[in-house]
Amino acid sequence: MIGRVSLVGAGPGDPELLTLRAVARLREADLVLYDALVDAAALAHAPQARHAWVGKRAGRPSIAQETIERVMIRRALRGERVVRLKSGDPFVFGRGGEEALALAAAGVPCEVVPGVSSAVAAPALAGIPVTHRGLASAFVVVSGHAEAAYAPVLRSLQPGSATLVVLMGLASRSPLAALLLQRGWARTTPAAVLFDASRAEARAWFGTLSSLHDAPAGSGAPGVLVIGATVAVAASLSQSHGGAYGVAR
Amino acid sequence: MIGRVSLVGAGPGDPELLTLRAVARLREADLVLYDALVDAAALAHAPQARHAWVGKRAGRPSIAQETIERVMIRRALRGERVVRLKSGDPFVFGRGGEEALALAAAGVPCEVVPGVSSAVAAPALAGIPVTHRGLASAFVVVSGHAEAAYAPVLRSLQPGSATLVVLMGLASRSPLAALLLQRGWARTTPAAVLFDASRAEARAWFGTLSSLHDAPAGSGAPGVLVIGATVAVAASLSQSHGGAYGVAR
Repeated sequence: MIGRVSLVGAGPGDPELLTLRAVARLREADLVLYDALVDAAALAHAPQARHAWVGKRAGRPSIAQETIERVMIRRALRGERVVRLKSGDPFVFGRGGEEALALAAAGVPCEVVPGVSSAVAAPALAGIPVTHRGLASAFVVVSGHAEAAYAPVLRSLQPGSATLVVLMGLASRSPLAALLLQRGWARTTPAAVLFDASRAEARAWFGTLSSLHDAPAGSGAPGVLVIGATVAVAASLSQSHGGAYGVAR
Repeated sequence: MIGRVSLVGAGPGDPELLTLRAVARLREADLVLYDALVDAAALAHAPQARHAWVGKRAGRPSIAQETIERVMIRRALRGERVVRLKSGDPFVFGRGGEEALALAAAGVPCEVVPGVSSAVAAPALAGIPVTHRGLASAFVVVSGHAEAAYAPVLRSLQPGSATLVVLMGLASRSPLAALLLQRGWARTTPAAVLFDASRAEARAWFGTLSSLHDAPAGSGAPGVLVIGATVAVAASLSQSHGGAYGVAR
């Protein structure tokens, strides 16, 4: 009897942002393979399962993607219920698609359990709506980990036509801002850098596109950049907004 | 004593995609104001609360936005715990930002509870990752309800540089496809239309940019358009993918 693999989104960090289905899959799991940014409290929903950390993080040795896929396939073929618990949503920069394809090729049943993506939740928890009537009717999510990943979109996009959300972009914030300024984005375009969104230690920096290079780089914490007119909504909300953000200036 | 308002994302429809925090807020609510696409099963988490439908839907008379905001403010100022339950995420095309600003202006405490957005979950549940190594390192989410909403982004964006997700775009699929073809997108670019994502009656249509005008328009059901190379991943997954989608051709 073949088991199955559930590719499960754990949300941005706060374990209360897990979905009911994510919790249900964790409760019945035999094995949980989890990423670097997954909170330990999420694993508490799977007390009977074995837990294996398979995270990748800059500057640390990481487990090869093929190894992760091989383990999932082997365990599922032995009849185990495997949960692959990923930060955010499994299909947003999570290599979830690659893992699903590997499982399909091996004949292993696979399901996707969507999660709350940091791309939307990190801004929202800081009081920034990625869309807002009169300010933005579109948003763009790019990976900032390499210029080749973000440049084709950011070079072509009409300045100011969408809210930009950059994941894994802390290290690229200066060249990325320079690219947008060169492309014609206004220097005064509001910008924010959000650290550890949804966690107790969450912090936010607010500035403009021209001051983005002065934003703190964090200390290895995950960071989300947001650029666009909707960032200014946060200031209007800050007096009553119940979000957990401190302000890093 | 002042109450508070929680702007809560209900996810794409399946009540198992509610977050734990959404359920907690529903359990302690005095009043739930819910949208057209919110599933009745979600309301079952708030059996003690009053429920009020405040949805908007094409072709039906709708409650004015100002009325919704006035009711929330009045009830919270009376000490009630109000949940404003919105389809998907409250800050993705949900007027959540406007409601948060109205509450802030009235001095009413307000929090945002992010939800699973259909923009990511509808594709994922159909086997389409919005990002995929070698295929897309960015995705763009636009509203298709009016040309002015999507044209500035879609006219400028470099063809093929990102996965496009169009919400509320069923009626616009032909002019939108024509705009992209004129801009230089390949006629063979994979495209999908996803109806009632995450629900029992979910259906998917797969085709290409040049055949998008032949896609079914649905019968008032919510639909998500997805355009880009990552749409083709679904075909490779279809044999083992455990998603609930039927295929509409």
